[in-house]
Amino acid sequence: MKKCEILSVGTELLMGQVANTDAQYISGKLPGLGIGVYYHTVVGDNPVRVMEALNIAAGRADIIITTGGLGPTQDDLTKNVIADFIGKRLVRDENTCALIEGYFKRTGRPMTESNFRQAYFPEGAVILKNERGTAPGCLVEFLYGNEQKVIVMLPGPPGELIPMLDNEALPLLAKYSGGSRIISRYFPITEVPESKVESMLLDIIEGKSNPTAATYVKDGVVTVRATASGEDEAAVNQMLDGVASKVRERFGDDLISDRGEDLKTVFLKLCVEHGLKVAAAESLTAGLIPYLITSVPGASAALTGSFVTYSNDAKMQLCGVKAETLELCGAVSRETCREMLEGTSRAFSAQLALATTGNAGPGVMENKPAGLVYVGAKLFDRIEICECHFRGGRENVRMRSAMKALDLGRRLMLEYFRV
Amino acid sequence: MKKCEILSVGTELLMGQVANTDAQYISGKLPGLGIGVYYHTVVGDNPVRVMEALNIAAGRADIIITTGGLGPTQDDLTKNVIADFIGKRLVRDENTCALIEGYFKRTGRPMTESNFRQAYFPEGAVILKNERGTAPGCLVEFLYGNEQKVIVMLPGPPGELIPMLDNEALPLLAKYSGGSRIISRYFPITEVPESKVESMLLDIIEGKSNPTAATYVKDGVVTVRATASGEDEAAVNQMLDGVASKVRERFGDDLISDRGEDLKTVFLKLCVEHGLKVAAAESLTAGLIPYLITSVPGASAALTGSFVTYSNDAKMQLCGVKAETLELCGAVSRETCREMLEGTSRAFSAQLALATTGNAGPGVMENKPAGLVYVGAKLFDRIEICECHFRGGRENVRMRSAMKALDLGRRLMLEYFRV
Repeated sequence: MKKCEILSVGTELLMGQVANTDAQYISGKLPGLGIGVYYHTVVGDNPVRVMEALNIAAGRADIIITTGGLGPTQDDLTKNVIADFIGKRLVRDENTCALIEGYFKRTGRPMTESNFRQAYFPEGAVILKNERGTAPGCLVEFLYGNEQKVIVMLPGPPGELIPMLDNEALPLLAKYSGGSRIISRYFPITEVPESKVESMLLDIIEGKSNPTAATYVKDGVVTVRATASGEDEAAVNQMLDGVASKVRERFGDDLISDRGEDLKTVFLKLCVEHGLKVAAAESLTAGLIPYLITSVPGASAALTGSFVTYSNDAKMQLCGVKAETLELCGAVSRETCREMLEGTSRAFSAQLALATTGNAGPGVMENKPAGLVYVGAKLFDRIEICECHFRGGRENVRMRSAMKALDLGRRLMLEYFRV
Repeated sequence: MKKCEILSVGTELLMGQVANTDAQYISGKLPGLGIGVYYHTVVGDNPVRVMEALNIAAGRADIIITTGGLGPTQDDLTKNVIADFIGKRLVRDENTCALIEGYFKRTGRPMTESNFRQAYFPEGAVILKNERGTAPGCLVEFLYGNEQKVIVMLPGPPGELIPMLDNEALPLLAKYSGGSRIISRYFPITEVPESKVESMLLDIIEGKSNPTAATYVKDGVVTVRATASGEDEAAVNQMLDGVASKVRERFGDDLISDRGEDLKTVFLKLCVEHGLKVAAAESLTAGLIPYLITSVPGASAALTGSFVTYSNDAKMQLCGVKAETLELCGAVSRETCREMLEGTSRAFSAQLALATTGNAGPGVMENKPAGLVYVGAKLFDRIEICECHFRGGRENVRMRSAMKALDLGRRLMLEYFRV
């Protein structure tokens, strides 16, 4: 199998200003081509260190994919250093010059001479079109020792990188794959701690040859990743089908999906399948629940609208939460959560309602500790409300609360519609 | 200045399942201690490759910080490989054993024998408490050649890593800093393209010694990062004050903040400063605007509630958008945006209202292309509505729309309250 290293160039990554989502995106795409991502490296916009990193990468990988440093600014030096490294000169591409001029004319944006820096490429490179910006990428083969290697240069902004990778680079990279197929499947699971998930799957995990399995956790969801490889795609899939049936059998409703779909996608599918309208009333999550649901295309089939009821006034006015309830039990209470569920399902004529009320922190609020959250779901006349004690910072508490609401809704739908 | 490399161990990062936010968080914290982050590396849960990566890191950095691989599962191998690498044996810490047992008793979660793996540390290590999980970290010094180096091991889950870094590791790392101070300031700017920002600051950027300046873009905001270093903190700050005054003068209202505050923070501050109540009515952004605002602690001073009006019905019912408007102009129109602004400001008695309506894509909707969005803000009786053509995928269009709404609101407030 061919090995790939992703080399990201950008001081902004080393300063912590942005996360390396480019490397994440590329990594998700290559295994399907039979290319394994073995390393990610980040270096700053410094020609000496970029050169050293290229040396290390070429020594341990067959395919190098760089991100960043293709723009028009002073610190965009990737192409120059790579040209030096592989011993090729940069040549001007007139076609790209014309495209850059056209782009600036069309968008009416001011053009500076430095924009033409983007029209130079190492000799022999295949140019990769940038449909969302002015910096094209390129792919170029080179010899390292006497081994043939390939380097692909992609722009840093994700909005430009993603279509260039998908439409331009991946089709070219397919021919560099080693012929074998690597397929991964993902099994997201809720409400079971990671060490328990692993101990329930020890027979699969301890094998560690083919297929392999491992777990990881994000936003309260434990995901099992099973990976198999081989020359024959059908045989690879058969191995994974075996894993899938064990996981299904052992985890039941705790398993969100045996096809790697995430919680919001599965939640929306169930709503649509059963013709349910969903609405939320949110205090601490303040919009996150409908935002997550609508990140899945087609959400309008289930979600018509939703309430953010951050203050007590909004809870009373929009959801009809009673003043006595707020006074006696507090905004952060099971009772308030229940009235929010009832109010929002009524207001939107929604069969399924979700609600969150809690203290995201930092600090204590109305005597309620940070992390105390009531999360509820109501399906027809069934109501389920959980008292949760989340740890972590404000954003973690809010994300966990929204995920919990979706999961409660998912479980209610599964139970209600079970034959 | 001491050089640091962050070495993240985790196949899930190489498979693209999660972004390396740990490296991002750590990177943001070290420069303040006078430690420069020069490299990020990611390798999988493979002992040979982890060992090779440690060798490279020790060869080029003074301080190595590892993330991940400290948990109880089979693929958590970081401590074992590091102990091998630095030539120390792992010793059991009885205190940690007791804490782990106590944690499982307290939370009532099932404990497996493998949880005790977390109680072994390289001889001589300082143990770093994990207040949010069972895997402690550690810090240990070692000799590489005849150089004294230090390695810090942190857990992978961000909720555990963040408090351990902040409360346990940073105080210890302070003594490894080289004595010099590195200070960065951030100047986020809207509505000016990156190449224009750079050309307006060429006199600062082309100097490239001390201070340095560079630009990067995220979610439509161009940020100038200026960094200065030196032994004397006051002198370092003075250099940065010089940059700040040039940036202020050249960018005016396009500059969001000369103290690195982000758009949502500045937006909320202005609302609170002027005693304004804010509410949104959102179609395609579906909750993102209040979610962003409330990620800033203290948002309840300005935001009481908000509407997600995803469907036409919700637009009419909650905001009083007229049926004729939707029929004649469509949901994605300037007129609908205006009625959403009016409706939400009325419903919440909000002096400042924000609204978004558009097509996030994929695909054409009601004859409106993906990326066409009307974004509006209303402050008292002043209304500003922009027709935007965003590119990029669904999530990018939604984020850009929400940011544009906050920025329109920010500019309206600046103009209205300007003396």
